[in-house]
Order: sequence, then C-alpha cells, then structure tokens
Amino acid sequence: MNCSRVRLAYPRNAMSQRKTQSRSRPETGELSIIRSLRSRPQALSRAIRLAIGDDCALISPPAGHQVAVTTDLSIEDVHFRRGWPAEAVGHRCLARGLSDLAAMGAKPIACFLSMAIPAELTTIGRRKRSWLDRFLEGFLALAGTHGAPLIGGDTAQSRARPQALALFDVVLLGTLKRNQALRRSRARSGDLIYVTGALGGAAAELLALDKDPQSFQSLSAASPGHPQLYPEPRVQVGLRLLSLATAAIDLSDGLATDLRHLCEESGLAADLYDLPIHTLASCAEVKGLTLSALNLALYGGEDYELLFTAAPTSQVPRRIAGVPVSLIGKMKPRRGGSPVLRLRAGGKLISIDHGGWEHFRGSP
Amino acid sequence: MNCSRVRLAYPRNAMSQRKTQSRSRPETGELSIIRSLRSRPQALSRAIRLAIGDDCALISPPAGHQVAVTTDLSIEDVHFRRGWPAEAVGHRCLARGLSDLAAMGAKPIACFLSMAIPAELTTIGRRKRSWLDRFLEGFLALAGTHGAPLIGGDTAQSRARPQALALFDVVLLGTLKRNQALRRSRARSGDLIYVTGALGGAAAELLALDKDPQSFQSLSAASPGHPQLYPEPRVQVGLRLLSLATAAIDLSDGLATDLRHLCEESGLAADLYDLPIHTLASCAEVKGLTLSALNLALYGGEDYELLFTAAPTSQVPRRIAGVPVSLIGKMKPRRGGSPVLRLRAGGKLISIDHGGWEHFRGSP
Repeated sequence: MNCSRVRLAYPRNAMSQRKTQSRSRPETGELSIIRSLRSRPQALSRAIRLAIGDDCALISPPAGHQVAVTTDLSIEDVHFRRGWPAEAVGHRCLARGLSDLAAMGAKPIACFLSMAIPAELTTIGRRKRSWLDRFLEGFLALAGTHGAPLIGGDTAQSRARPQALALFDVVLLGTLKRNQALRRSRARSGDLIYVTGALGGAAAELLALDKDPQSFQSLSAASPGHPQLYPEPRVQVGLRLLSLATAAIDLSDGLATDLRHLCEESGLAADLYDLPIHTLASCAEVKGLTLSALNLALYGGEDYELLFTAAPTSQVPRRIAGVPVSLIGKMKPRRGGSPVLRLRAGGKLISIDHGGWEHFRGSP
Repeated sequence: MNCSRVRLAYPRNAMSQRKTQSRSRPETGELSIIRSLRSRPQALSRAIRLAIGDDCALISPPAGHQVAVTTDLSIEDVHFRRGWPAEAVGHRCLARGLSDLAAMGAKPIACFLSMAIPAELTTIGRRKRSWLDRFLEGFLALAGTHGAPLIGGDTAQSRARPQALALFDVVLLGTLKRNQALRRSRARSGDLIYVTGALGGAAAELLALDKDPQSFQSLSAASPGHPQLYPEPRVQVGLRLLSLATAAIDLSDGLATDLRHLCEESGLAADLYDLPIHTLASCAEVKGLTLSALNLALYGGEDYELLFTAAPTSQVPRRIAGVPVSLIGKMKPRRGGSPVLRLRAGGKLISIDHGGWEHFRGSP
C-alpha cells in the first residue's frame, strides 16, 4: 500500500476532535495550547493517580471519603462576553464549580475543561499570547489557588457560521468525608440564616460593563474587587461550615431564587431581615443603572457567596476564613397559602414569592 | 418593597443558565425536559450517594477502588448532523465516553450531561416529542444498558446567530480496583496486538450518510448494525481484559493514530499483519465512495473498538463477551530512524508513519 493513496475527503471529527488526555500532533494554535497545558507544572495531590495522558483520569479519594462532582457550562454572550479580560473569563468558568463544591463543604482535588473554541481565539497576536492562552492563565491561577489541577478534558474547534462562539464546560471534583456533606435539605425551623460577603455586586458590575463602561470605571474606583469578573468562591468557608451549618447553598441565581431552593428542599419558609448590600450595587443605584440596590441583592445572581443556616444555639463567628458573615433571617414552618419568602421592609414583612428570576425573563 | 418594581433589564444568565441538579421552574420546552429527566426512573448503584438535586452529586467508590473520569464534547456539524436520528446522536454522545472507560477496564457507574441546545430542538412537534426528547431516549437507553445513570449536568440555550448549533459535553465516571487500570504505556516488545470487532465501518457509514444517502440505504441492507450511528462501546470486553491485556486503547481517531499513541506511551514500534475489515467499508469501496477499504480501517476513526496487547503466552480467546477478537500484529522494539508503524502489504512490511490523520487535514 502506498502512502500517497491514503488521502480521503473526510471533512469532520479528524479536523477538530482532540482530547486533552492524549494528544501529540502537529502544531496549530489550538494544539500548541494543549501541548503547553500538558507541560505546565501543576501540584497533584495523592488522590490523583493518573492525569492527562490516557483514556481516562484516575482518582482515589482518601479512605472513608466520597467524591463530589459538579459541571458548569459557560457560553459566550450568555455567561461572558468576548470583550472581557480573557483571564477573568477563565477565572469565572472555574469559580462557578468551586462555589458548588464550597456549598457542599467539599475540598477541591481536580478539574476537567472541555472547550469549543473559535480559531481566532487561539491565534497568537502581537502580544504573543492568544485569547485562549490568557483564558488559561486565569483558569489555572484559580485552580492552583484552590488545589484543583486540570487533569483532563476535550477540545474542539467551534465553527458555527458566520460567527463562532466560545463555550467551556468545566467539571470539578472534590472530596469530603462520608455523610458529612452540607445539604440544601437539612435546614430546620427556627434555624438562623446567614450569608457570606455582600450581595448584588456581580449584577451591578455586569450592568455597568454592559450598559455603561464609563460608569464601570468609576464604580470600580469606588469599590475594591470585581465580583462579576473575578468572583471568589468560598471554598475555605465551606470547609469550616461542615461543623457549623445545618444546610447550605451557593448564590448563583440570586438570593431569592437560591433561598427558595433551600426552602423547598427543606420543606420550610423563610423571613429575611437585613441584607448586606455590596458597595457596587449601591453605587449602581446612585448612578441610575438600576432602580434599587436591593433588587440587585435579591435577584441579581452570580455573587457566588454562600447562604447557610445554623441552629440558633450555634456560635457563628462574624468572619469565617477571613470572609464577613451576616445574619439575614430565620427559617419558619411552611404553611399552605402563606408566602415562602418574606422580607422586612418599612417595618412589615412582605411576600417576595413572585419577585425574582421570572421578572427577568420578559426583558430583552 | 413592591414586587412590581422588581423588573430589570438583565439580559443574560438568568435567561438560560440552568443546572440539571437543582431546578423546579416554570415550564418551557427546555425546563420541561429537565423536569422529565428528574422524574425518569434510573437504577442507582450503591456508589451513588446523591444524584440530581443539590449543588453537587456525591459518589462513594467501593473500598479499594478508584474512580475513572473521562469527558467528551460532541458538537453539531463536527461530531454529528442534526439530520441524523436524534436517538443515534444521544447514543453516540454517550458511547464515546463509555468506550474510554472500556479501554481502562473500568465499570461505568454514572454520567453527567451538559448541553447547549437551540430552542427549536426543544420544541414539541406534531409527533409530541422534541428532538431533545428523542436525543435523551437514545442517551438514557445506552446509559441504562451499561449501568451509568445520569446524575447531573448543566443546560443552557444555544443562541449563536443566525443558526445556533447543539453541543453536548458528556462526563463518565467508572470504578476499578486500585492499580488495575489498563494503561496505554504497559505494552512490551513481543506482545501480540489484538482488536475487537471490525474496522472502517463507522467511516464508511459516515461517507455514505454525507455523500450518498441512497448508497447508505443499500449499504445498511448489506450489513447489520450502524457503526457510525450506534457504535457499541466494548465495556464488557474491557472488564475481561483486566486479566488478559498488557495495554489497551480505544479506537476513536483511527487504528493508525491510536496504535501510534500506544507505541509512543510504551516506547515501542508495531508491525501490523491483517486487519478485520467491516463489511460496510468493503461495500463503500465497491460503491466507489472510497479508494480503499483498508484506508477506512486504518484512518477512518470512530469505530470505538478496543485495541489491546497481550503477552504471546496469553490465551486470548477468539471471542470475548460475545465480540470477535482478531490478532492483527506484534509490538517491536523502537529504533531511531526506523518506522514506528509498518503494515504488511504485498508480502512486504511498509511504513505507514506518514499516513493517517494528517492526510485529512487539508481536505475540505
């Protein structure tokens, strides 16, 4: 058989389907990234028996431990914009799953990254670093901080016409002792409700980024941190909550929605008193970007703070792992016909059952 | 606070970001699918401590076992066509990861599905079942066959303009005893090389589907099975190989490419004698769809058969778990300057180092 005859029109998988776990191929922008990924030093815990380089990765949790698994899709123009700093996009894609681990009280041990990536994002420009390279910088920096090395994944070229979008699916693995996980369903009536950090900052930063970059600059100057671009998953707090909290959830969809999930899973209702409002949300209100900072705090979403409940007898510190913790309400019995969520405003408790996510749906 | 004031223009995540693990929301095509997913009965092994319904899923591998993890992206117009039977697309998306588990000798225990899905694929048509519903039928049927219940994931609406494409990222988890995994790197010089099933069928079916649906129908009539649409991951074979094989890999990129990986990881070369050619590949040659059935067998890819090596003293049966097994070659020492892969053709061993995947790259 002559090699020169081995040419076929075979216009597909071979063009783009590449597993991070196994490649050693001619260089393209994309493949050189994968090669560089494999060559980057990453600290692997003893739980990682096999990383990139075979058909599967292999994990051995410590004796008596279980493995927590979560996956998060991040899509261009849905979850991020191409115009954002690429490092921030990498950071956010990973932060979402780390926040899920935190909400279970799990210790991160590894992550996987699948990406559908338009060719132009792998092109090395004048600055000698592609968008994807900067994405990976942000991704791997956060992975390193939390001890979650990248040990596998998949990559393909995104080729929708006329404009291909980038997409990332991130899997996170963590470990925790059996029967220790923080659950949404274990809150009890009378438990107090706490939240870490401050709320509404991510939504405020997003509004500013989308609607008024100029305002964004002044907002940023007014407040430290970038809750939308660089959310800080509360992993260390989650580990400490294992001995304190009765139930926990991370705030990805907005306090009102996520607390409702916790109420539903626990079969309870909740009354909210005071909410810690992020400085950026207050600034956004002043700048006229939003009607109310409280709206952002309740419904904005993506703060990636932890909401948790604890028995009223528990000594919950005001800071955990360096993060401020605020008492915001109380779990109540659930009664048919009564609101699930109430908020104290103007001296009264009013229902907020019908606010929240649904309100955004009709908006453009 | 008045609920009617809680309306904001917030044109993003809230619109589309939905986790399979936690939702109970107003019905849309997409959300009704997620709801129906949660309600479908699935057999969960004791290793699954927590499935859909919290921030993470929880897995406890049996004592002394490790967890194998693999992820596979499947993108419309790259890995599948919308015009294919939706059930087949679901089947294939899952089959790829099952095949990776098989190549390690791991027993499947669970899967995760992340999907970016265009709205029109969730619409219920006259037949009362959406494309996505049929996709899930195929996916869950194969998951059930192999004991890999769907226990989490993420879903978002795919909204690229003007035409959104569907994308699926599938994570598979399996378990196997510590230090027992089949590795690519453990082949020894003198080991014999075997392959399950027959080769080139998936590529032949793909050519027919893409280029000549008419031919495809006659091809299908000539041969049982649909190696492209419904590949059969060799999970049971992989489990049996734990006590037989020295090394293994699954055939996703084509025999020449995948055997090269195994050679590289083991530091060896390989001589190939005879290859079992799939009937469909021979038919495709006859129909003029391809120049040579051997090309399809060597370079076509996606057969999802297992390639493995075994000591020459091992008694390798001709069938394992009902699947035919063929002896196709022998592992050799690797020598600088000598070809890594050689194929016996016309009584001679000729190099096939420069055939394969690279040849497809320049093709349209």
